[in-house]
Amino acid sequence: MTFEEIVSAASRLEGKAIKTPVMTSRTVNKQTGGEVYFKCENLQRTGSFKFRGAYNALSQFTKDEKAKGVIAYSSGNHAQGIALAGQLLGIHTTIVMPSIAPEVKLAATKGYGADVVLYDINEVTREEVADQLAAERGSPIIPSFDHEHIIAGQGTAAKELFEEVGELDMLVVCCGGAGLLSGSSISASVLSPQCNVIGVEPEAGNDATRSFKSGMLQTVHNPDTIADGARTPSLGNLTFPLVMEYVSDMVTVNDEELLETMYFMWERMKIVVEPTGALATTAVLTKKVDVTDKRVGVLITGGNVDLKKAAKWFLTL
Amino acid sequence: MTFEEIVSAASRLEGKAIKTPVMTSRTVNKQTGGEVYFKCENLQRTGSFKFRGAYNALSQFTKDEKAKGVIAYSSGNHAQGIALAGQLLGIHTTIVMPSIAPEVKLAATKGYGADVVLYDINEVTREEVADQLAAERGSPIIPSFDHEHIIAGQGTAAKELFEEVGELDMLVVCCGGAGLLSGSSISASVLSPQCNVIGVEPEAGNDATRSFKSGMLQTVHNPDTIADGARTPSLGNLTFPLVMEYVSDMVTVNDEELLETMYFMWERMKIVVEPTGALATTAVLTKKVDVTDKRVGVLITGGNVDLKKAAKWFLTL
Repeated sequence: MTFEEIVSAASRLEGKAIKTPVMTSRTVNKQTGGEVYFKCENLQRTGSFKFRGAYNALSQFTKDEKAKGVIAYSSGNHAQGIALAGQLLGIHTTIVMPSIAPEVKLAATKGYGADVVLYDINEVTREEVADQLAAERGSPIIPSFDHEHIIAGQGTAAKELFEEVGELDMLVVCCGGAGLLSGSSISASVLSPQCNVIGVEPEAGNDATRSFKSGMLQTVHNPDTIADGARTPSLGNLTFPLVMEYVSDMVTVNDEELLETMYFMWERMKIVVEPTGALATTAVLTKKVDVTDKRVGVLITGGNVDLKKAAKWFLTL
Repeated sequence: MTFEEIVSAASRLEGKAIKTPVMTSRTVNKQTGGEVYFKCENLQRTGSFKFRGAYNALSQFTKDEKAKGVIAYSSGNHAQGIALAGQLLGIHTTIVMPSIAPEVKLAATKGYGADVVLYDINEVTREEVADQLAAERGSPIIPSFDHEHIIAGQGTAAKELFEEVGELDMLVVCCGGAGLLSGSSISASVLSPQCNVIGVEPEAGNDATRSFKSGMLQTVHNPDTIADGARTPSLGNLTFPLVMEYVSDMVTVNDEELLETMYFMWERMKIVVEPTGALATTAVLTKKVDVTDKRVGVLITGGNVDLKKAAKWFLTL
């Protein structure tokens, strides 16, 4: 994969995706000693960066491919991205979602016009459900991260960040299946070659960190973490080699740290960030990533969280 | 007051205030039939537009005036605006605040380096406390809205909005003492002369609406509303005539409606908005202001709310 594919994706997304704002926080800079730029993909359409990859993938369909519709499986944000991209491009979308997905994500996905097929995570895998639908309909499955067009689309967020704030010493990115991490690091390699790209995972779902450190693909099964967007079982065939090639380090943070960061971001930065979306910021605030005297980019990846669930979490702090 | 004063304020604020993002929401447009542009002053420094007026006022102090420091009284956002402006300009600030002010506002004001003097709203007025301090120290009191430099500073938010999105049919603005409403309507009168400017107040504190409809200055005493930034007792000597001259209409919304709007904005728009900051959006979502087929600007004025208090509110819905 090359940076040119990200440039092409950016031109497809022109006028479709929001050029999300970049925020700074004096409090964060004072606490960490760094100069931190937050790229707010929680303010992206559908509430996460996932719209970028989804639209980039679906907009390349031929007329015949469009007619067949697409299938996707997702714990949430990829679902919404595919659903809205399908709606904008006139492509029928079917989303396979776990019955335990947050209500806000189910409602939003349906709101974008997708057909939602629920499955019980204890009975069957989402791959089985999606494969069966795909076989019945002859429709392709668009995976949530391990796909060149998805990775290229996700790489446009970091591209925008570098174009707005210039070169950085460090870019901190959350990691589920590493679609965003891969795309971001390809953008960094061209637009800010000296930039160290750091991936951040939830402690309970640290498969990518173990894979990165050992050089062998590691897996995890249904990790127990509030970062529901990073419960992916492993890196992919495309993303694992990209992470090994381009990423400088991987760190983990725990759910308690995530919750404290969310509280800070909501109350002080005035933005709603979901647990997965707070992974990178948490690594910076807990100093697991040392940003002292560095110019640092942080990707805030999503804001899709059930507000009542978040309210209950916050009242425990 | 003229638009030229707002232009001067904008140049003083260049590089000091954030040019806040303008957001749109497909859901809002679908529900209301309008094309709505949200100017996000909750993402302004100190979490509200009040920094604009405060910085514009303090930056015009002479060296001698700077040395004497300033005093302000405020239920919160003006306090933070003055405190940060003072810190940036090297001016000592003393803020008189009610002891019942939200903890997040007290903490933030102190965090910006201000001295905070608390008073009991049942024992004494804030004017009495501030007047005594001013007499003792020979320092000026910077009022929260009824001051030309404050009004001019607040008018820069609407100026930015018109410059970004072009002329509008309607601009909907929250109203406490009408510093923002006055400044916004002066900007509208020059940059979008056909634009109707609508003020929105909490139902319990509807003094400005009554003043507007009757043409006689009306007051209210400690109104019971969650919109704590709009509990002002009346319009001012400067703002009342400006409202009469430039504003097209005034409407009110109640606390239940405000809370539902906040819930929507937090969960769907991914931004933290305080009750007062949600006044204008509430008027649009409840259709008290009809935006059908219109291009409409809405000022989201602040995001300073105690997160645990908001969490408890949301759990009652």
